[in-house]
Amino acid sequence: MKTTNTQAVKIIPLGGLDKIGMNITAIEYNDTIIVVDCGISFPDDDMPGIDKVIPDVTYLVENREKVKGFVITHGHEDHIGAIPYIIPQINVPIYATKLTMGLIEHKLQEAKLLKKTRRKVVKHGGIVNLGELRVEFIKTNHSIAGASALAIYTPAGIIFHTGDFKVDYTPLFGEAIDLQRMGILGKKGILAVMSDSTNAMRPGFTPSEIKVAKTFDELFAEHAGSRLLVATFASNVDRVQQIVNTAYKYGRKVILQGRSMETVIEIAQKLEYVTIPENTLIDVSEIDRYPDEKLVFITTGSQGEEMAALSRMADGSHKKVHIKPGDTIILSSTPIPGNEKSVSKIINELEIRGADVIFQDTHVSGHACQEELKLIYSLLKPKYAIPVHGEYRYRLAGANIARSVGVAKENAFMIESGDVLALTQEKGEVIGKVQARGILVDGLGVGDVGNIVIRDRQALAENGIIMVTMCLEKGTNQLLSGPDIISRGFVYIRESGDLVNEMRSISLKAIEKCEKQHIRDWGKIKGEVRDSLEDYLWKKIKRNPMIIPVIMEV
Amino acid sequence: MKTTNTQAVKIIPLGGLDKIGMNITAIEYNDTIIVVDCGISFPDDDMPGIDKVIPDVTYLVENREKVKGFVITHGHEDHIGAIPYIIPQINVPIYATKLTMGLIEHKLQEAKLLKKTRRKVVKHGGIVNLGELRVEFIKTNHSIAGASALAIYTPAGIIFHTGDFKVDYTPLFGEAIDLQRMGILGKKGILAVMSDSTNAMRPGFTPSEIKVAKTFDELFAEHAGSRLLVATFASNVDRVQQIVNTAYKYGRKVILQGRSMETVIEIAQKLEYVTIPENTLIDVSEIDRYPDEKLVFITTGSQGEEMAALSRMADGSHKKVHIKPGDTIILSSTPIPGNEKSVSKIINELEIRGADVIFQDTHVSGHACQEELKLIYSLLKPKYAIPVHGEYRYRLAGANIARSVGVAKENAFMIESGDVLALTQEKGEVIGKVQARGILVDGLGVGDVGNIVIRDRQALAENGIIMVTMCLEKGTNQLLSGPDIISRGFVYIRESGDLVNEMRSISLKAIEKCEKQHIRDWGKIKGEVRDSLEDYLWKKIKRNPMIIPVIMEV
Repeated sequence: MKTTNTQAVKIIPLGGLDKIGMNITAIEYNDTIIVVDCGISFPDDDMPGIDKVIPDVTYLVENREKVKGFVITHGHEDHIGAIPYIIPQINVPIYATKLTMGLIEHKLQEAKLLKKTRRKVVKHGGIVNLGELRVEFIKTNHSIAGASALAIYTPAGIIFHTGDFKVDYTPLFGEAIDLQRMGILGKKGILAVMSDSTNAMRPGFTPSEIKVAKTFDELFAEHAGSRLLVATFASNVDRVQQIVNTAYKYGRKVILQGRSMETVIEIAQKLEYVTIPENTLIDVSEIDRYPDEKLVFITTGSQGEEMAALSRMADGSHKKVHIKPGDTIILSSTPIPGNEKSVSKIINELEIRGADVIFQDTHVSGHACQEELKLIYSLLKPKYAIPVHGEYRYRLAGANIARSVGVAKENAFMIESGDVLALTQEKGEVIGKVQARGILVDGLGVGDVGNIVIRDRQALAENGIIMVTMCLEKGTNQLLSGPDIISRGFVYIRESGDLVNEMRSISLKAIEKCEKQHIRDWGKIKGEVRDSLEDYLWKKIKRNPMIIPVIMEV
Repeated sequence: MKTTNTQAVKIIPLGGLDKIGMNITAIEYNDTIIVVDCGISFPDDDMPGIDKVIPDVTYLVENREKVKGFVITHGHEDHIGAIPYIIPQINVPIYATKLTMGLIEHKLQEAKLLKKTRRKVVKHGGIVNLGELRVEFIKTNHSIAGASALAIYTPAGIIFHTGDFKVDYTPLFGEAIDLQRMGILGKKGILAVMSDSTNAMRPGFTPSEIKVAKTFDELFAEHAGSRLLVATFASNVDRVQQIVNTAYKYGRKVILQGRSMETVIEIAQKLEYVTIPENTLIDVSEIDRYPDEKLVFITTGSQGEEMAALSRMADGSHKKVHIKPGDTIILSSTPIPGNEKSVSKIINELEIRGADVIFQDTHVSGHACQEELKLIYSLLKPKYAIPVHGEYRYRLAGANIARSVGVAKENAFMIESGDVLALTQEKGEVIGKVQARGILVDGLGVGDVGNIVIRDRQALAENGIIMVTMCLEKGTNQLLSGPDIISRGFVYIRESGDLVNEMRSISLKAIEKCEKQHIRDWGKIKGEVRDSLEDYLWKKIKRNPMIIPVIMEV
């Protein structure tokens, strides 16, 4: 495709590249910006107390009048989770396919934003016009139904965003990925492909979901005499549908466990993505009416999440379901890197209770492996490749795959969140940088926990805190009361009387030294107390608690 | 083997079964106790600030006069790390093979205990007499040289402890595991086998270390033009020897990086477990004298350990070694479960600096897989099996392997730390329980950080702390000064003025309420302040910081 227009289209990822999850990308042409996805990321281990991380959309707010809409590829948290936080800042319409929109609407409803937010459900093959851009939703396969790739038509050329995808020629429900449409678009000419890199380091193809169906059948047959529990992702509605179908075939009743499992499946049922035969779904309160071998629980917690249903069953804190010898638990998902230890902990707990725990041995990921990525690039034949969705080394692998099938070395871009990548038919280059970072959410507080607070939390966790309180007389600075020592997370004061007495007398000496030297500056007095205690504690027990001297004046 | 003596031998694991690592087992017969291994475990994620965990040896202290010695299987931290903490409590002789003893002596020296501690180096095939028990050290293979199994002769029969082992028919250095001796002992009759279960869930055989040698040769040939860095465990001295040999063959100089790498290899060289050709080892300060392709670094940090040399190179904080494009980094170890995320972080950082990071693709573990375990049980043919070294599900797999090759179902024991397992030729049963738990070490403090302190640290990390300080007049309880609000890890006060003002006025109201109601009890005043702030903060921002009201009296 040749175009006489020399203006560049700008691709500006506002998250997702330096931080896993939190997918959000602005596509800008002239006076039009559209936003692809609007996800959260989950906090790292070094962010204690943080519930989630949302993107900083300052750039969008500053260009508010240009922003025409959000186009959403699919309904996973890392693609839709930030919508309730961002809509109050940029209230533009949201475009998504049916199930994706159902999940978004649930979020908006919880945040009391549903009525205020314009929404439009788009079918696969459908096109929306947004200012100077047009977006076509194209059917793909993924571990959630309704997933889409987006062909974004700009005067500078077509940007093709794969979303999260895999190639499943034989999906259990619905259609396969629309490879024909990709071939047609490729023939027309694609300027750039932004492609999922999650599995770019894995050779071969991701197996079809049909493989999972076979294993369920075998597992249900093999464990016909046991009570069954299957743990999987709530959002994998096709997987849940399979479990329901297998349960029905084997005459078992199904119990859904876990808040997200119940919510998502309710939405999916309403939108007819999941069909549960009559008299199959029962409430957990009814389980005593049926023999064990006529029950199957479908539960959240396959990743060892601490508060999920499976975790509570494993540690015995689940009110309704008590694991017992003879139970068979099927983990229908592979641990995501970082979750191995929590998953292991749960398996041990379940086995100690006498349950038999099995991994469903077919690992069927929702993301394209190397051969699938080659296929997509070969169909689309873009000038530029921008691997997204994956840490640096995965994206680097993705760039190398693009290069291996025809993209010029310099045209496969490794960009960072905030980079402004300007593309024309002639050249592609990073021309600027906008603000992009994660904003921490803790409870209802958004952004009020910053680096200082996080560093304090880490320090408090490592070493605890000591407060030294004292009362000084106004004017004379004479010590009226104290110093008293209070400690949390350092040592247990009741069992460390000598240490506390010693700390008190060291603090007293520091205060007296200041008195003698007629030091009146509270900052200096506090500093003297802090320094002497720090020295003492490091020498005595090689620890470094946070020390907070507090002076009150009377 | 028949014996007329009906007294039981008692096997008492004091750690290692409910907690990974921290291997220590008392074997007791009549008036003799010997202790197999004396290791630490590393802290879990939910133990902030803790450096290591050591076993509680109250049972040994209470039976001090019975304890005849420590017999140590090999020199890994989870088998020797607690010795400096336990020797001051129970100063009995230590028996180990040469390299193991070298590593123990280094620890004792650092703790200034070397002179006080009796030690005896034992050769493979050697026997030590300890009270009514005799212990034979038998050659095995493992990821550290000098590893031993122990045949413990008791009047009730022979206890065979495998230590950590694998079967390597073709070790690169030294002898293969002494299977013949095991056959002879098995023929004599073994009462019980305590066996490594780390890889009991893996089918097949662990490959020989010889496989690794081949990959090193290929990797050095393939990357002949790059500066090379190989990351591995310091304690795997055979692996280090291979890297040295390959470096020598390809004319490269070797630089050791990381404190434990330097220490362990120095000890191993002195004891002739490692031989480094002359002019091969150079100091890091000399690297500028050689071209990149003539250098190979051998470094710690293959598990992504935060303070290790590789980690500092990756994040750019290493003073002497700066990673640059063209460098090739070989990770010569598989991430241990739980370390995947840290390893991934380091790989990303190294690749962002332009380095090429490769996993050495042969995973050569130091632990026996299923077929090896079957072999050992088939040689030893014990009456009882006690799987050790591994979390519950691994030990359960170990028990099932023992059963599959002839141990009676009820004779394969799943016991917990502290269980007293009494064995005779007639029967085996748990007859009691002794104190067994992990004692937390933080800096120089041993055991002063208990559950309360750990819970406080967790709470501080999640939500931070708020102190409310006030001065009251003696007698009247009239407010003289305050309330003042101090916060750490909650919100940043300078940016949250309104919230802090609100908290102050709520505290003031609570104090005034107490004044009006003539409440004089400090506990009640503090409670009132704490409760009103808690309510307010939960309603306002759904957070639960630790709230500490402090009253001073003047």
